Amino acid sequence: MSFLQNLNWRYATKKYDVAAKIPSEKMELILEAIRMAPASNGFQTYDVMVVTNPEIREKLKAAAFNQPQLTEASVILVFAAWENINANNLGKVFDQIAAVRGNSESLTERRNKSIAGFEHKSVAENFSHAAQQAFIGLGFGLAAAAELKVDSTGMGGFNPAQFDEILGLKEKGLRSVAIMALGSRDAANDWLVNLKKVRRPKTDMFHEVK
Amino acid sequence: MSFLQNLNWRYATKKYDVAAKIPSEKMELILEAIRMAPASNGFQTYDVMVVTNPEIREKLKAAAFNQPQLTEASVILVFAAWENINANNLGKVFDQIAAVRGNSESLTERRNKSIAGFEHKSVAENFSHAAQQAFIGLGFGLAAAAELKVDSTGMGGFNPAQFDEILGLKEKGLRSVAIMALGSRDAANDWLVNLKKVRRPKTDMFHEVK
Repeated sequence: MSFLQNLNWRYATKKYDVAAKIPSEKMELILEAIRMAPASNGFQTYDVMVVTNPEIREKLKAAAFNQPQLTEASVILVFAAWENINANNLGKVFDQIAAVRGNSESLTERRNKSIAGFEHKSVAENFSHAAQQAFIGLGFGLAAAAELKVDSTGMGGFNPAQFDEILGLKEKGLRSVAIMALGSRDAANDWLVNLKKVRRPKTDMFHEVK
Repeated sequence: MSFLQNLNWRYATKKYDVAAKIPSEKMELILEAIRMAPASNGFQTYDVMVVTNPEIREKLKAAAFNQPQLTEASVILVFAAWENINANNLGKVFDQIAAVRGNSESLTERRNKSIAGFEHKSVAENFSHAAQQAFIGLGFGLAAAAELKVDSTGMGGFNPAQFDEILGLKEKGLRSVAIMALGSRDAANDWLVNLKKVRRPKTDMFHEVK
């Protein structure tokens, strides 16, 4: 098992084998990698919907330009960032830190400072910050899938408002920001699998400041 | 080598061993993981500054609330998202796709559609989209570091405008969005290394829709 050895094996799977199911132990490891992903200040400001329900997935597909992965992959994850960061949801994070590490005066001070900091910012800024953490989690999830030789697709190209409606995210204070499809490639019918992977040359993307 | 086996080994390193240097072959693998990270439509809309210059790092530290990693880690990466996505920078991406896969009518059509799509959106929307891709890359970089047992810290908490100024990013059409420090932990002097890692419980973070 090595993530780095599978960087070229992985690709954005376009056509999944509908009959293939991800073994539950692999699924658990992928979710665990997402759960253990780092986040700014350790604040995991997003939730993940694990969608297997076929009717819901049909609806999501219609709200995602009919991209076939929505119904053909084994599992669909929808990353949903917190709409805002405030005393309510961040308070729970601090409750948990206190439960794990013990409460202290300095933790209370950090709690108050952190909440005040986010409340000082606009809802849009906080949502954007929350979404960025979700994309780190998406990266960890895609890396975990690669290590386990589970095929995956990080996906945009959907109507977030419709996704939020279908999944009841608004009531939860969440907004959908990314999809991750998981399953097994149907290599014989995937138009992308044999196309050469295109990445920017190293000298174009990286700049040494030395 | 396994990323998944090191999920608990990794942590946000606060204190680096100043004398320790990352072997260049490991550094190359980490950069390669970032370069191979997926991005929306394959458009890698960010650059990465690889900063080793000590004077520049002192300046960055001053613009990052004096966080010690800026000068104590072995290498500092600054992820810089494209300020806008337009015919100029996205055009180069399509030039490269054409060079690798060959040009075609459908590729030209896709080029025109993609560029028109981004030009239809606001600069702020395009920057936000570009930054999200950078955070997937950050996730891949942190995952690669974990697999290689290289210590790392994903970092916010800096003044982006000052970073842009110090690194000359504005002239390049870039804006700094995240830092990744890399090196070796100084475990004896790191206040975080022995604290219990806090993550949201699985049942809190993940929601099954089945």
